[in-house]
Amino acid sequence: MIVEELAVTAKSGLRERQRRERGDTILQAAFALLAEKGYDALTMEELAERVGISRQTLYHHFASKEDIALRAVMIFAEEGIQSIRAIDPLLPPIDRLERIIRWMMEIRFTPTRAAFVRARPMLARIKASPEYREAFDRRARAIQDIADAAVEAGQIQQGLSSAMVVQILLALVCDPSYEEMVDAGKATPAEVAESVALFFRRGVERRSEA
Amino acid sequence: MIVEELAVTAKSGLRERQRRERGDTILQAAFALLAEKGYDALTMEELAERVGISRQTLYHHFASKEDIALRAVMIFAEEGIQSIRAIDPLLPPIDRLERIIRWMMEIRFTPTRAAFVRARPMLARIKASPEYREAFDRRARAIQDIADAAVEAGQIQQGLSSAMVVQILLALVCDPSYEEMVDAGKATPAEVAESVALFFRRGVERRSEA
Repeated sequence: MIVEELAVTAKSGLRERQRRERGDTILQAAFALLAEKGYDALTMEELAERVGISRQTLYHHFASKEDIALRAVMIFAEEGIQSIRAIDPLLPPIDRLERIIRWMMEIRFTPTRAAFVRARPMLARIKASPEYREAFDRRARAIQDIADAAVEAGQIQQGLSSAMVVQILLALVCDPSYEEMVDAGKATPAEVAESVALFFRRGVERRSEA
Repeated sequence: MIVEELAVTAKSGLRERQRRERGDTILQAAFALLAEKGYDALTMEELAERVGISRQTLYHHFASKEDIALRAVMIFAEEGIQSIRAIDPLLPPIDRLERIIRWMMEIRFTPTRAAFVRARPMLARIKASPEYREAFDRRARAIQDIADAAVEAGQIQQGLSSAMVVQILLALVCDPSYEEMVDAGKATPAEVAESVALFFRRGVERRSEA
């Protein structure tokens, strides 16, 4: 009896692992397709073909294109939170804040992310999902912890609360129109990231003078 | 014959003026209702009632609620452009930029505008309209002129182009989530406006030292 149960568990464990692995494979293919053609041109048909599975199997894993997008954005969000937490805690908090904004500005121009940043109507729908809100709030809190430390260390100019520093950082990072500047040839992605990081640093940092 | 034509022109001129005046009256009522209840709760029925006209007459002026919203946003956009152009040109350009961002941050918390800022899905649709894009571009150019003057006067820190200064100013102003800070009791509207203006000024201004 117990042996039988274990066998069933092992079998379903294996099946669950296989299922998860196929889900990962699908997501990888979806990311590659997104980077190649962007969100709007991505179809479930093409994705199934790329992975070498039937449409039915694909729909077994993801209910819709939007479902895939939400999963992708959640993976990005988790990566973001991990990156923030991975920053050397011995660095001065103001340097950690600058590193965060620089990284966030750079990463949005990488092919896969760019496909999402440019798919605005889709993004607007995802942003309303509770799962995304929760990840967004966790990311904001991770930044808030560092902003608090910067205020405590006397590195933030007077008149700016740490909540305001987080708000400003996210306002700068979340604006969807840097891509238009790049498209118009007014700046390269690297120049945009550098300018925004520089501006942010100068704007929040307490000056040593007087 | 000529007299008759003049009479017809005068008559249609009068009719056109009456039509425009009624359009203004409707918009004023719409603004008041928006400030009271917000965009989502506004109905064409209630608006017609408030103005004291039939629904049919209302629809003769505005095809839809969205149509009214677009008209309102266009009026705001024009006001914004006029306000920018009305700033004393003898002021140092950097002071003019600070004045613009302060004004834009303050005005969004006035009741009528707040109703729009909070009606995001509606705003997303309006933003796609060519008429709005055109007004947005004109506003950006008005700011760009001042940013160019600030660069020319040596008031902007090195490494920031005037295009980037405009981009950053608009990214800060266009973020929809300051309201969440205010709702959460983390800052008053005046504090938000002051902080963002202070941060912007410090972030773009060239330091006098070294």
